[in-house]
Amino acid sequence: MDLFEAINKRHSYRDKFKDIKIPEEDLKKIITTGIKAPSGCNAQTTDFVIVNNINLIHEIAEILQKELIKTAQAIIVCITDIVPVYHGMSFQKEDCAAATENLLLAITALGYATVWIDGALRREQKAEKIKELLKVPDNKTVQIVLPVGVPETEKQQKEKKRFNERAWFNSYNKEV
Amino acid sequence: MDLFEAINKRHSYRDKFKDIKIPEEDLKKIITTGIKAPSGCNAQTTDFVIVNNINLIHEIAEILQKELIKTAQAIIVCITDIVPVYHGMSFQKEDCAAATENLLLAITALGYATVWIDGALRREQKAEKIKELLKVPDNKTVQIVLPVGVPETEKQQKEKKRFNERAWFNSYNKEV
Repeated sequence: MDLFEAINKRHSYRDKFKDIKIPEEDLKKIITTGIKAPSGCNAQTTDFVIVNNINLIHEIAEILQKELIKTAQAIIVCITDIVPVYHGMSFQKEDCAAATENLLLAITALGYATVWIDGALRREQKAEKIKELLKVPDNKTVQIVLPVGVPETEKQQKEKKRFNERAWFNSYNKEV
Repeated sequence: MDLFEAINKRHSYRDKFKDIKIPEEDLKKIITTGIKAPSGCNAQTTDFVIVNNINLIHEIAEILQKELIKTAQAIIVCITDIVPVYHGMSFQKEDCAAATENLLLAITALGYATVWIDGALRREQKAEKIKELLKVPDNKTVQIVLPVGVPETEKQQKEKKRFNERAWFNSYNKEV
């Protein structure tokens, strides 16, 4: 799929997935786009666990208290590590978000759908419960979770503000 | 350009740019991909200033103390805003990184090159100086800067760790 088409079609999907398996080859192709994403000083701070075991998918859906996630055919779990790379600064959140954006676009291009789950993990120890389930080392963080599958319903990208409300030439908020 | 080709070709470019203007239409097409990126609760916390005035480009290059940036034909400045959207949490860094990844891919697809500048802005008040130069409101942050142009030399993506060093099925660091 053309890059710009993938960017236009990408959207947050929060409905049921069809009962169609995702070939391992597709999952590997998706994850490879995350691996190829940029990271601060190329520290590659994001790791990925691809959950396609049905029991584990159900357990994660239970932890997240989201029944619809049980219909996902895979759940991609993005894991971050704090690595100071530049004058004591670490960019693990940015690294993970850039990798996740690649994943979202690849998922879209291959005909699947997903939604970026982040804030919900920070409540009621949900991230920690998933971390334990997937045997993620203590010093790492379960940062973002993406349930993936073939969408049962057609959804669209949420409406965005107009260009002139968010972008300007040479000076902030300057009328051209 | 195909999505996967753009992801493969994207790289950090830190060399001279050719003296070839970037049409405003291309700059708008690039920025539109940033506007279409996901953001926490669709809060769209990232704004963009596209600097294509040669004097301003030189001033930003001076602030960044990077002579090569003077050869850029445009500098995209990504600006974030802290907006609590979910149980007091704000995702402005993630929003901006996802938008920036779209920008990088679009820049690549249109035949230009760039590099993600972030950490360097956090030192010696560089972000604040650019903020003042571009009349960005006090409550917002100059988060990421992308110098853009037609590359004078051909570069490649830095080597990444192998799949099995960063990704596993159903359990962290599990041999398949």
